[in-house]
Amino acid sequence: MTNTIPASRFLTQMRARAPLVQCITNYVAMNIAANVMLAAGASPAMVHAPEEAGEFAGIAGALTINIGTLSTQWIAGMEAAAKAANAAGKPWALDPVAHYATGFRRDATRSLMGLKPAIIRANASEIIALAGGTGAGKGVDSGDSVEFAEQSAILLARQHRAVVAVTGEVDFVTDGLRSAHIHGGSALMPKITALGCSLTCLVGAFVAVRPDAPFDATIAALATFAAAGTEAAKLAEGPGSFQWRFLDALAALDPAALDATVTTA
Amino acid sequence: MTNTIPASRFLTQMRARAPLVQCITNYVAMNIAANVMLAAGASPAMVHAPEEAGEFAGIAGALTINIGTLSTQWIAGMEAAAKAANAAGKPWALDPVAHYATGFRRDATRSLMGLKPAIIRANASEIIALAGGTGAGKGVDSGDSVEFAEQSAILLARQHRAVVAVTGEVDFVTDGLRSAHIHGGSALMPKITALGCSLTCLVGAFVAVRPDAPFDATIAALATFAAAGTEAAKLAEGPGSFQWRFLDALAALDPAALDATVTTA
Amino acid sequence: MTNTIPASRFLTQMRARAPLVQCITNYVAMNIAANVMLAAGASPAMVHAPEEAGEFAGIAGALTINIGTLSTQWIAGMEAAAKAANAAGKPWALDPVAHYATGFRRDATRSLMGLKPAIIRANASEIIALAGGTGAGKGVDSGDSVEFAEQSAILLARQHRAVVAVTGEVDFVTDGLRSAHIHGGSALMPKITALGCSLTCLVGAFVAVRPDAPFDATIAALATFAAAGTEAAKLAEGPGSFQWRFLDALAALDPAALDATVTTA
Repeated sequence: MTNTIPASRFLTQMRARAPLVQCITNYVAMNIAANVMLAAGASPAMVHAPEEAGEFAGIAGALTINIGTLSTQWIAGMEAAAKAANAAGKPWALDPVAHYATGFRRDATRSLMGLKPAIIRANASEIIALAGGTGAGKGVDSGDSVEFAEQSAILLARQHRAVVAVTGEVDFVTDGLRSAHIHGGSALMPKITALGCSLTCLVGAFVAVRPDAPFDATIAALATFAAAGTEAAKLAEGPGSFQWRFLDALAALDPAALDATVTTA
Repeated sequence: MTNTIPASRFLTQMRARAPLVQCITNYVAMNIAANVMLAAGASPAMVHAPEEAGEFAGIAGALTINIGTLSTQWIAGMEAAAKAANAAGKPWALDPVAHYATGFRRDATRSLMGLKPAIIRANASEIIALAGGTGAGKGVDSGDSVEFAEQSAILLARQHRAVVAVTGEVDFVTDGLRSAHIHGGSALMPKITALGCSLTCLVGAFVAVRPDAPFDATIAALATFAAAGTEAAKLAEGPGSFQWRFLDALAALDPAALDATVTTA
Repeated sequence: MTNTIPASRFLTQMRARAPLVQCITNYVAMNIAANVMLAAGASPAMVHAPEEAGEFAGIAGALTINIGTLSTQWIAGMEAAAKAANAAGKPWALDPVAHYATGFRRDATRSLMGLKPAIIRANASEIIALAGGTGAGKGVDSGDSVEFAEQSAILLARQHRAVVAVTGEVDFVTDGLRSAHIHGGSALMPKITALGCSLTCLVGAFVAVRPDAPFDATIAALATFAAAGTEAAKLAEGPGSFQWRFLDALAALDPAALDATVTTA
């Protein structure tokens, strides 16, 4: 195992560019996701209405779509945005929250997958189900280990020509050929709502700056999160204090801390 | 006054089961409510669209409905979810935020009350108005004392065969026959938005685990909140620090701290 | 430059009255805006549905409208509320977030401007574009200095007979004849999402109590924000800790701290 991915350089580039990212995310995540983006150095914009989502996707550097609190109106905005991003050559990332839970979610996810996301970020149960398997997810929470989802992730990446990121205790990223693990973070992170959703937005920030390298950009986003999580956990006394310490840590993060979190196979 | 309710045992059971709870709540509350649920040990899912709210109610252990930021689309989802919860024998809790303020809210609340909530949690002005009286509420904030609402709560509980919880400085819970007071918390709690809404979600977590005992489950949820609030207030310097200390306190809470907060009449 | 505005007295009055303010704001801002209002001493209510927004505007002391996460349904509620506020003689404040970014936003803003807001609060790029100029805004973030927007603000104030507030490093407020600068705050404030949106809600709280003096009320709201920001920055270690320290500072703020932040031309 050697570390060959220059995640640190990606963070420096992202901060220097402060990319505008269109984040279509759920109601639970909106505030914390925007704060994560600002702390990390990006410029988020939450624009979802069908009447403007497509137009805005042409302006933004990248798009992220999260189906957490889905409704029919929002699906129309998501599809308009994804199509416009594709037309403009902008990469977009999908976060298929609990897509297996209801028929409504399954249908929406199938339709969004058809619009060619460059990156799919999800938890292990979601990735397993997306690849056609049966996971042990409960509601929005994963019931499976990341390790158990790695083969599904590789399958999914090859089938959809996308980068697939499975996040959990140790994260796994693959483009179907290459793969990497990202270590770090904290056991408190699943105890704060919508951190995974916020991470999907952050993936958008990195890929907006490096659309030529979605695999490495995704790794860099996950490494940023992991390194900030490790830092925040040092002084946190619970999920409440972890949350604000995590934002402080993101803003103060030394890029050099990222590289130690990544191992490539 | 003796303490006969084993609230501590309910908290231990709830944490062990980590129940999936469908929370249809308002936009202001969503993030803090999800964080309260995770900190306390439950698994929240915010699913509201009419297309899936009913299907999801069959999966979740309990349902909570809060009308804070109401709209026509959301009412359809609320009704679909409440009907499905009833059909599946799952208990559901209603939080009729400022239901007296507009005709739109009054109509929605009347319709939801007809769908037989197992538990109604509200502030004093809301409970008084729900029982047909005239309270002194202003917008979403109560203008009445809990004590003044106790007779209304008992009336309401008998009329609707529901558990009614009135929260304020000292909380009052009744099923129409029995009643209890919950002491503790902090004067800072009404200064943090949506803590009451979050408490309604937490009631859902306890009743999901003990659907056979909605009266005791409601008391246990309120006792959990009160004990964590007392703890958080010890070091809080204002509403900002109270909020994160409250989440830390919820996560670290010793179940034994609950029982001292409850007195039964 | 002399300080002639009794901002401190306005804060004392506002806290004493705890005005009910109807805040139609975006999904990102709702929670933090409500917490800002409560910490400052006001009573916020987030009511947006077309079916009730107008009725509620007659009850509230003032109305604020923010177009951050716009949709067709919400525009209907915004317009109903603004018309009802006008009919009831209640002042309302407009926050035209990124109004220049898409045709959908431009149309909605033109329509809302026609409904005679008493106050317009925005960042420099938004004010410049609203006055017909071309700013350097990127998404929801300003790309221009407040100083560069002052002439646009005066023009806009005269044209619409409104108070115009441009917020940034040093804030500028004008009614077209008089003007003032508000100093203070912190460089961390743009790094926390939706603080500007929250400030618009707070302007509503001050003008609800002093509808006779929208210019001075707006200054007082901005001075409250600046003084609390200065205080919070003393101990903040990043955007995460700034946010909760800001709420603590707002709640504990000595009104006397306001007057030093204001200079009038």
